[in-house]
Amino acid sequence: MKICILGFGAVGKGVAKVISMKRDEIKDKYGLDIIITAVSDTSGAAVCEEGLDPALLLEIKEKTGKISKYPEYGVPNLSNIEVLNNADYDCLVEVTPTDIEDGEPAKSHILKAFNDKKDVVTSNKGPLAISFADIAQSARKNGVQLRYEASVGGAMPILNFAHDTLPSCNIESILGILNGTTNYILSRMAKEGSSYEQILKESQEMGIAETNPAQDVEGTDAACKVVILANSILKRNVTLKDVEVVGISKITQEAISLAKNEGYLIKLIGEVSSDTLEVSPRLVREGSPFAVDGTLNVATLKTDLADEVTVVGKGAGSIETASAILSDIISIYK
Amino acid sequence: MKICILGFGAVGKGVAKVISMKRDEIKDKYGLDIIITAVSDTSGAAVCEEGLDPALLLEIKEKTGKISKYPEYGVPNLSNIEVLNNADYDCLVEVTPTDIEDGEPAKSHILKAFNDKKDVVTSNKGPLAISFADIAQSARKNGVQLRYEASVGGAMPILNFAHDTLPSCNIESILGILNGTTNYILSRMAKEGSSYEQILKESQEMGIAETNPAQDVEGTDAACKVVILANSILKRNVTLKDVEVVGISKITQEAISLAKNEGYLIKLIGEVSSDTLEVSPRLVREGSPFAVDGTLNVATLKTDLADEVTVVGKGAGSIETASAILSDIISIYK
Repeated sequence: MKICILGFGAVGKGVAKVISMKRDEIKDKYGLDIIITAVSDTSGAAVCEEGLDPALLLEIKEKTGKISKYPEYGVPNLSNIEVLNNADYDCLVEVTPTDIEDGEPAKSHILKAFNDKKDVVTSNKGPLAISFADIAQSARKNGVQLRYEASVGGAMPILNFAHDTLPSCNIESILGILNGTTNYILSRMAKEGSSYEQILKESQEMGIAETNPAQDVEGTDAACKVVILANSILKRNVTLKDVEVVGISKITQEAISLAKNEGYLIKLIGEVSSDTLEVSPRLVREGSPFAVDGTLNVATLKTDLADEVTVVGKGAGSIETASAILSDIISIYK
Repeated sequence: MKICILGFGAVGKGVAKVISMKRDEIKDKYGLDIIITAVSDTSGAAVCEEGLDPALLLEIKEKTGKISKYPEYGVPNLSNIEVLNNADYDCLVEVTPTDIEDGEPAKSHILKAFNDKKDVVTSNKGPLAISFADIAQSARKNGVQLRYEASVGGAMPILNFAHDTLPSCNIESILGILNGTTNYILSRMAKEGSSYEQILKESQEMGIAETNPAQDVEGTDAACKVVILANSILKRNVTLKDVEVVGISKITQEAISLAKNEGYLIKLIGEVSSDTLEVSPRLVREGSPFAVDGTLNVATLKTDLADEVTVVGKGAGSIETASAILSDIISIYK
């Protein structure tokens, strides 16, 4: 299978890395040979239909910051759409930066790939949170596959889990801690008794929170995931503007202490059901599956027969997120 | 698909119940029509190749305690092997009581079904903990399927999860809380400060612990599940006698308090890796996915790419366990 990777940041590099680690093993195990025929970044692209060397891609990016410096096959200033026109590929791995206003340019990349009868794997929340119905319809119309496990919770395999492991059950609702940064901040506030502002500042210094933390702390990132879960698992037809969102920036140390005294923690919880789409701070019981700390993500499926089943995993990380993308590539092949 | 249910205790009745609830829905969703053609209990059996009525099976069992009283098709004193000889079925649902000495009579039922070229779904830990290799080999030799999701953790879908949702990853080890009764006892000891003996007694009165609690509190039940996980997920070839087992009956309130003061809980943990097979009380950190209370079961997969992923679910319950059996039946059909 020939893949084209658009975007070569943390996730794109992770994909190259896991392919370099696992290519032979996957060939042995599944009979699937994954060949990277194109990679792009803001400098341009590297394109070679015989296949690019994952290790060399990583080395060039590390040394020069520009994938277009790839020897022989590097092309400066090639746009992503030109890459899709020039490259020989079966599956697009769309991992360009997320935009939650209009989902572009990722949305155009995905739709172009579908029109060219290519499958798509993405970790990009933007187009799925803004235009899920259009994208899913285009995939159906073109008879191709779309997979996006990495877009919700990184290495927490909630979508495959919900779709594949409980065929006897109806999933009635989903509750989750869908953002690692806010979980980290709230967990440390509960443990250390420090203020929101203090812990946010330290999280930014550690690189866990971004310089502009709004999308995380105001709940927008979690809301995007709520939209994806609602569309994918509960077959709703919703977009980001349908979600009621309250972030964590108003949570005081007093509220956390009060909760703690009664055996509760405050977590930023996303909820999806047939009539609810919400992200808000809520009390969760100590000893419940939601009481996990650090940057972990959690999602609980409420089902008709199996009661509640929960999956927990790392919500971020280059290799971890790339593992979800690689699983999607293997699933498309299978 | 015609199914034969051997054993009509909590799990067998649960299977009849979920089939009566979901038969039409499963027909619509998967094109699978599940027909119960035989059911046995210690009184005999009910056998009808056109299909028995799940609701009537449950009513007769409730009223008389004897499935052989089923109108027209009830047969007193029919042995399970005779049921398998007489019944017209595609898939055996083996849910007779668990025996961990030699796995019988369930083992013989399963092997007979395989030899008759029938698929098998079971929740029965006994034969899998004692004779996994023989059973798996017989399934392969006869070209039939064996599924046993319900044998580990009831409605916690750890086997399907490990086999289906992480195709890019190697699973290197598994750690789990695999017994709900001991988790319940240890959780209440930590919360209430009471002694092991006191909480065990109350758990027995509530029906959470059995009158003879040895298999739970001495770790044997968890050890059976460790064996199944090791064989199924890590492709080891082990049996119950290979597991090092320490139970919870020597855990003192003092040990629990000491741990709690440092932010830890004591849980009965099963561990499976390429060189470890163990059940023992261990410290787990508050805030970790293992810090769940009540009768919940947990299993964490340590993987090469996705780091740790965890699944949590109800370890017991008639309907919950039956949901895992129904999922296995659907998976065999698919």
